[in-house]
Amino acid sequence: MREYKAEILSIGTEILLGNIVNTNAQYLSRELASEGILVYHQSVVGDNPGRLEEALEEGFARADLVISTGGLGPTTDDLSKETAARFFGRKMVRDEKALANILERMTHMKREITPNNYKQADLPEGCIPLYNHNGTAPGFILTDEDTGKTLIMLPGPPAEMTLMYEESVRPYLKSLSDEMLVSRTLHLCGMGESGVEHRLRKRMDELQNPTLAPYAKTGIVDLRITAKAHSEEEAEELIRPVEQEIREQFGDIVFGTDDDTLESVLASLLKEHSLKVAFAESCTAGLLAGRFVNAPGASRVFEQGFVTYSNEAKHLMIGVSEETLAEYGAVSPQTAAEMAEGAARTANTQTAVSVTGIAGPGGAVPAHDGKPEKPVGLVYIGYYVNGQVDTEEYRFHGTRASNRDNSVVRALNGLRMRILQQYK
Amino acid sequence: MREYKAEILSIGTEILLGNIVNTNAQYLSRELASEGILVYHQSVVGDNPGRLEEALEEGFARADLVISTGGLGPTTDDLSKETAARFFGRKMVRDEKALANILERMTHMKREITPNNYKQADLPEGCIPLYNHNGTAPGFILTDEDTGKTLIMLPGPPAEMTLMYEESVRPYLKSLSDEMLVSRTLHLCGMGESGVEHRLRKRMDELQNPTLAPYAKTGIVDLRITAKAHSEEEAEELIRPVEQEIREQFGDIVFGTDDDTLESVLASLLKEHSLKVAFAESCTAGLLAGRFVNAPGASRVFEQGFVTYSNEAKHLMIGVSEETLAEYGAVSPQTAAEMAEGAARTANTQTAVSVTGIAGPGGAVPAHDGKPEKPVGLVYIGYYVNGQVDTEEYRFHGTRASNRDNSVVRALNGLRMRILQQYK
Repeated sequence: MREYKAEILSIGTEILLGNIVNTNAQYLSRELASEGILVYHQSVVGDNPGRLEEALEEGFARADLVISTGGLGPTTDDLSKETAARFFGRKMVRDEKALANILERMTHMKREITPNNYKQADLPEGCIPLYNHNGTAPGFILTDEDTGKTLIMLPGPPAEMTLMYEESVRPYLKSLSDEMLVSRTLHLCGMGESGVEHRLRKRMDELQNPTLAPYAKTGIVDLRITAKAHSEEEAEELIRPVEQEIREQFGDIVFGTDDDTLESVLASLLKEHSLKVAFAESCTAGLLAGRFVNAPGASRVFEQGFVTYSNEAKHLMIGVSEETLAEYGAVSPQTAAEMAEGAARTANTQTAVSVTGIAGPGGAVPAHDGKPEKPVGLVYIGYYVNGQVDTEEYRFHGTRASNRDNSVVRALNGLRMRILQQYK
Repeated sequence: MREYKAEILSIGTEILLGNIVNTNAQYLSRELASEGILVYHQSVVGDNPGRLEEALEEGFARADLVISTGGLGPTTDDLSKETAARFFGRKMVRDEKALANILERMTHMKREITPNNYKQADLPEGCIPLYNHNGTAPGFILTDEDTGKTLIMLPGPPAEMTLMYEESVRPYLKSLSDEMLVSRTLHLCGMGESGVEHRLRKRMDELQNPTLAPYAKTGIVDLRITAKAHSEEEAEELIRPVEQEIREQFGDIVFGTDDDTLESVLASLLKEHSLKVAFAESCTAGLLAGRFVNAPGASRVFEQGFVTYSNEAKHLMIGVSEETLAEYGAVSPQTAAEMAEGAARTANTQTAVSVTGIAGPGGAVPAHDGKPEKPVGLVYIGYYVNGQVDTEEYRFHGTRASNRDNSVVRALNGLRMRILQQYK
């Protein structure tokens, strides 16, 4: 495969006004990276033929492949597609299959068919049409035979664009190459990004095929192993020893691969050991339970969650003692422990997790009566597993939202680690 | 004020690899739009001096003002800042105040101070330094006296960039103009975007100053009224009659302005009438309570939330009758009503909201025993307000995540509308 240089061109005044965030560019950048195609430039222009033409000129001066999104709606299609056709010296011709798709969709949605809908079916002569199975506007792939420069125009709505990419563009890009890229992502929780990078820096620099690259999300580090090979099997053989090496180095910190999530892995683990779980939440106030149930099969291991936002609720709903609350306060290891125990007892489960803390922005408690300060970001997580109770203390330094998200991730992972430990 | 043309230039290989979504460009585009500054182009380049120089050349060929983000980290600062200085024919000089800030932060975080940290304090000669109150890297404003072309370089991490924008860049941009733009945003819930647009289309086209523009989020439509004037008072006089007109047309559908959120407005309303609220959640499983507590003062009106994920939990925690569950199923108006009633009774509150539904992706119940099908996206919301109980049925067509988010928004708004109704 020749080394393609690609650019991503987003067309849409709504992006320049800041009304929407350009997730299409991220999606395409990530997809192209995973095909081994280098993206050196992203740009955004409005729905304006003159500026689009300039952008195509600049883009093709630097790159072999330009992928655009947007500008194909029923009110703007005449601009972008015709500008592109002119740029490639082509005329526009009607695509009957695209037209049939448009008319069928409009009829199905009981919308009025206008002349613009017919124009939506016009495409540059000699292109590869890309049919839209999530909307009306077709896209296309257009290659100049002399220069090999290729333009791929895709619709702007993410649901239409991504489906068209998956169905048509990805296979097209793969067909250009006799090699394939295969990736496996390992998910890690329980060590920070800098710690993971520090331990793997040398290996990441050494490894050529497969490559190894880290990606951090809230509380989670992903390690992507990517192999270039002529077959799936060959790629798998390249990936396997590196995966093995990372698993040996990080142990239980690696919680899953690819489509696994922290909640799906925890739900499977609970199921495997015939355990049920309950949640008692104060500062997260339901976010922990709300995320856990995204795990397939969550309903087999989870029935009851307690949002205990006040001291009284902690006492009434799950029996935290009034003395503990008065003596140590709601944000304390003692309260976190009694919340976890009380949740398990009340819901009659073998495991439970509790979260109590000061998510911010306000709510910090200054030092008083010889008791230490409780700053914003201080969070206690309590765990109950088959009668064993313990707690963790965290001090987060983010926004209210990120402090709560971090608490949820730590809580899910903390229970996972404790179950693994007990059933070793 | 001269009509500034601006461009946004994001510097960062991680954006070109698709590892992060470029929220900085959206933030700056929206901010510039609200200052009346036109953005014709956004672009992204990697951490590469040659391509950065090209990007500056292209940008300043089209625009008077280029705002960049990123490329100022301790490992890359020598590249971007020095490239910019060279482009403007300036040398780099050390800024002592920036250095003091860097050293203080590094010491506070107990990090080792490296030569790179000193280089971070170097800035192009003659620039306006922008100090970083959320990190180490300073930014700057650099203007060429001959051409008036201005480059503003800001750090990449959103928390650092937005604070620097608010503290330093926004006042700078405002100082360039003797006119100001003042906006008020009205938040609407209870009517879809197309319905709102349909009613206001003519007025949006007619209005010149102030202008009127809609923005849609999950279940909420924002209407932004923007006036251009020489003083706050003058702007306020332009905005007031348009706000009044919209409030008359949409009534209680307008739930707040500017920083108000659905949850903050609901929390205030509960407080105003000395009411407390409880939540009983099945498919949302805590997200409703988890969002409500983002309202300032939520703890004064909310104590207990029930995540009742199984039928048994609905019965045990809040007393939904086993007959109702057997006869009508968990996803039914009857169960939603008993959940709301049971939550209020159990938590001893005057109001309660329940949510039960099929969020997807699986879980649809086919028609059987003469009972109708229960498709994915079917959600019942139950309300209890001072003894009055009723339910709403929704059929959402989105993803699992958007169906759950939509349910939360409808539930918050539904309770708001019912309280307004009762206390009219």
